[in-house]
Amino acid sequence: MYVWPREGYTQGRVFLTQHAPPRPSTTPFVTSAMKIDGRQYRSVWLAEDGWAVELIDQTRLPHQFHIQRLETLDQAATAIRDMWVRGAPLIGVTAAYGLCLALRKDASDAGIATACETLLATRPTAINLRWALNELQAQLKPLPESERVIAAYHHTAKLCDSDVETNSSIGEFGQILIEDIQKIKGDNEPVNILTHCNAGWLATVDWGTALAPIYTAHNSGTPVHVWVDETRPRNQGANLTAWELGKHGVPHHVIVDNAGGHLMQQGQVDLCIVGTDRTTANGDVCNKIGTYLKALAAQDNQVPFYVALPGSTIDWTIEDGLREIPIEERNTAEVTHLQGKDSRGKLREIQLTPDESCAANPAFDVTPARLITALITERGVCKANHKALLALYPEQR
Amino acid sequence: MYVWPREGYTQGRVFLTQHAPPRPSTTPFVTSAMKIDGRQYRSVWLAEDGWAVELIDQTRLPHQFHIQRLETLDQAATAIRDMWVRGAPLIGVTAAYGLCLALRKDASDAGIATACETLLATRPTAINLRWALNELQAQLKPLPESERVIAAYHHTAKLCDSDVETNSSIGEFGQILIEDIQKIKGDNEPVNILTHCNAGWLATVDWGTALAPIYTAHNSGTPVHVWVDETRPRNQGANLTAWELGKHGVPHHVIVDNAGGHLMQQGQVDLCIVGTDRTTANGDVCNKIGTYLKALAAQDNQVPFYVALPGSTIDWTIEDGLREIPIEERNTAEVTHLQGKDSRGKLREIQLTPDESCAANPAFDVTPARLITALITERGVCKANHKALLALYPEQR
Repeated sequence: MYVWPREGYTQGRVFLTQHAPPRPSTTPFVTSAMKIDGRQYRSVWLAEDGWAVELIDQTRLPHQFHIQRLETLDQAATAIRDMWVRGAPLIGVTAAYGLCLALRKDASDAGIATACETLLATRPTAINLRWALNELQAQLKPLPESERVIAAYHHTAKLCDSDVETNSSIGEFGQILIEDIQKIKGDNEPVNILTHCNAGWLATVDWGTALAPIYTAHNSGTPVHVWVDETRPRNQGANLTAWELGKHGVPHHVIVDNAGGHLMQQGQVDLCIVGTDRTTANGDVCNKIGTYLKALAAQDNQVPFYVALPGSTIDWTIEDGLREIPIEERNTAEVTHLQGKDSRGKLREIQLTPDESCAANPAFDVTPARLITALITERGVCKANHKALLALYPEQR
Repeated sequence: MYVWPREGYTQGRVFLTQHAPPRPSTTPFVTSAMKIDGRQYRSVWLAEDGWAVELIDQTRLPHQFHIQRLETLDQAATAIRDMWVRGAPLIGVTAAYGLCLALRKDASDAGIATACETLLATRPTAINLRWALNELQAQLKPLPESERVIAAYHHTAKLCDSDVETNSSIGEFGQILIEDIQKIKGDNEPVNILTHCNAGWLATVDWGTALAPIYTAHNSGTPVHVWVDETRPRNQGANLTAWELGKHGVPHHVIVDNAGGHLMQQGQVDLCIVGTDRTTANGDVCNKIGTYLKALAAQDNQVPFYVALPGSTIDWTIEDGLREIPIEERNTAEVTHLQGKDSRGKLREIQLTPDESCAANPAFDVTPARLITALITERGVCKANHKALLALYPEQR
């Protein structure tokens, strides 16, 4: 565990050297796209020793940049349970790496089962975590114990690279939409993009989903400017999106969640791009609470409202998001209390509300497909309806 | 300056005894309506000595209940400048009381002029402050110096009572709307009302505007429950509305500003009532940033959206709120920093955003009349359009 920057800590974080041991020849080299102050990072990576896992403790962002080193199953479980990492894809690969670490101690069938049980218990409702572990187990079970450790690292690296490729593809499709608007605005005028919550590279392995088109456009020289919704109650916008955009050098302003409608009325938003936790077969989108309000304002002001997603977040078994998706009520302390940095730089929690007042904390809302201009997927951009989604994902027919 | 509760501080705050000296026979006795833990309060009042002014330091709410005693012009100016009091009506009467205090030292024409200059400089854009001082000056200037102090207190008391009567009347008209919904719901089911920001008694002398119908309904036994929008960036909902509702005994939950749309989708909001800083002749409403988003969600879910206002906030000179009302950009520190109570009960400020990130802070937005179900005024409830407003305020024809 060490804090950055520290004296003498100059090792490069180039991911060409990370998928050890051994580097599979079938996986293309994928370098990390995202940068922190000019240095390349992913949200999770293998340490220089080639077996320990390192990741950014996101609970301390944006005020402290703290890299955690994981050497055991229990440390990986803690990283997930205590939310050092969040975001479905990142949780999935961190769990997979946790299984790799466990197998170094015990690669038996019983060892695999115990490790998976431990990891599943950290976030019982995280579908991606369960999926990643099932995927890995299916690969490992047929192998002799002696080959399982190497295979586990190999397949986890593939999971990581697959996530990166998916997001990179979302970025390329979304970039086109941003560049089209820039051409209309002309004169090197920046395209103003509003986003909600954090669907950036910190929520995935690299690139992010909603932010991938923004990074791709920015990297290719298209002038962009991002309105970052603070995203109460957990402030993922103010804490994470602002931090990663700033570190990568993308111009942005943090705004309170109340401000987006006014900015759209004033013509200061050219498009919105948000992520999604779950998408129905009809294109309804369940995302961080408050997304629906921005979609309403976008419609009222003829601002395009895009949702970026990997196909894996589509739940083909449900159609009507409003009726069929139960909304999680989270701990009300997220509303009543807040963490930030005090005047001496120390992380501190304060209480906002009166002692006697109760709070309510629905964590997500559903944006009906009718309010969504289009979905940006790794296979292309499509209308938010069943027919258009099936055209991109014909295997779901 | 003293903190409540403190040992031995038991004086009753019944306002029958407050409009001294002397009590004008033309002003009906108006007792205070609002209660703090069962004891009656207004937001500003005369001390028991009959000349000093007392008020609640709202910057410390909800965590500290602190009454400030004002004895001089400079103290009154500080109270306004440092926002111990906020809300147009309360700022106006506090300035008027500041002039009363100044006149005790110097009741000459020059004294009046200097005092008004000092008070106007505290909040140069506060229209109500200017109006109250002009009103008072017009009454005082014709009088001999020896009669000015008594007359100033007399007219300030009338200003206070007039504000209370206006709000009480808004409460009675709005109460009907709430009770109508309660009758439809039946079975003693509470009426769920969403409000944004603080348009309660702390923003006025008593009752409030948006909260007046809620208090009136509650006092008459109608079951109500309030969803209190936190109201970033200044958290007037979480800090002030929640506090005054709680102290008066009105059931409520604090929610983040993002949550209201979801609650409306789920049928958990029966109506919205908000206040307004400025209303155009056509019924467009300029209110705290984020009001527009709630109005959009209300329309999308067929939830009635009401705006409560005294006629004095109507600006008959403008029609199109979106084009004609300039929106104030406030200090971005309101977005990046937050005040609350730490684990030891101490008020503390924390920083939310990364050091490198900029913020933007538009303070108000405009809700177009088309999204407003009706306006609740002291003269009755009317549609949000020019014709309906003129029918209530025929003197503006």
